[in-house]
Amino acid sequence: MDINVVNALTYEDFVKLFGNVVEKCPLISAAIWSHRPFKDLADIEAHITEFILSLPDSGKEGILRCHPDLAGRDLQSGTLTRESQEEQSQAGMTTLDSAEVLQMYRLNSEYKERFGFPFVICARLNKKADIVGQLSERLKNDRAVERERAIEEVKKICRLRLRNIVLSDIQTKL
Amino acid sequence: MDINVVNALTYEDFVKLFGNVVEKCPLISAAIWSHRPFKDLADIEAHITEFILSLPDSGKEGILRCHPDLAGRDLQSGTLTRESQEEQSQAGMTTLDSAEVLQMYRLNSEYKERFGFPFVICARLNKKADIVGQLSERLKNDRAVERERAIEEVKKICRLRLRNIVLSDIQTKL
Repeated sequence: MDINVVNALTYEDFVKLFGNVVEKCPLISAAIWSHRPFKDLADIEAHITEFILSLPDSGKEGILRCHPDLAGRDLQSGTLTRESQEEQSQAGMTTLDSAEVLQMYRLNSEYKERFGFPFVICARLNKKADIVGQLSERLKNDRAVERERAIEEVKKICRLRLRNIVLSDIQTKL
Repeated sequence: MDINVVNALTYEDFVKLFGNVVEKCPLISAAIWSHRPFKDLADIEAHITEFILSLPDSGKEGILRCHPDLAGRDLQSGTLTRESQEEQSQAGMTTLDSAEVLQMYRLNSEYKERFGFPFVICARLNKKADIVGQLSERLKNDRAVERERAIEEVKKICRLRLRNIVLSDIQTKL
């Protein structure tokens, strides 16, 4: 995707295309449209990061709370966003046996009880065993550390979703 | 609705209930959940206002860009949120004749071209003629003035949506 094409998008098309690079937070891509023209994809990513980091702690926690549980209710009921569905599927969350589903449920519940937001991890970069391991490990963090840790994962997810949009568009054009 | 009931909600139920009090910005209600316990409904509203006003100008514009056009594409195609559908209907936007639809299209386009965000007005508090009049009038503002003006409308919409949630819940309980 040519950055000039992106810079020529109306805000409506921009939000339609990039609105879910941060899960269920179209506000963020809608906001950074104000910073056009972008130099390149990295510039878009930098503006998103800058916006997220400018938020108060409650706002960062709000971003996390817009994320679904891994192997949770939305996966079971088929109400995940397309992006989350693909990511959870790639990480093996769609093929857990019942003992594994229960284990994830228990760990997610403990995590949410402790922090007041869901466990967020870049599923594309982690396999099932790593996810369970990190979930158990990160449960030991204090809330402020864990909030920042989880936001780092949001940034990784965002980076991969951005790349995915660009790649699929190029494939469409080929 | 008893405020104690609200304060006892998980963040998931809180976002499900209040997630669209600012149009398509669940991030905002998800964020202010961090400030529980709330004293009353006015306290929830105050936290939302505080959050919105803490955003950089791009963030305020981002909120506006999450709103649909009045009598626009989403209304025609039936893809408005439930809340917007009700509000636009009450303001008479669903019963415009073709000349009025064209007039709204022309004015909305001019407004978006000028400001880079859509015209936002609390439809519940305005009738058709007032909406057209204010749209024409506000087109004369400069961008900074108009951004703040539009955010005032977002706050009015939010206040009425909050009240609506509380009222419908009480009605359900009766």
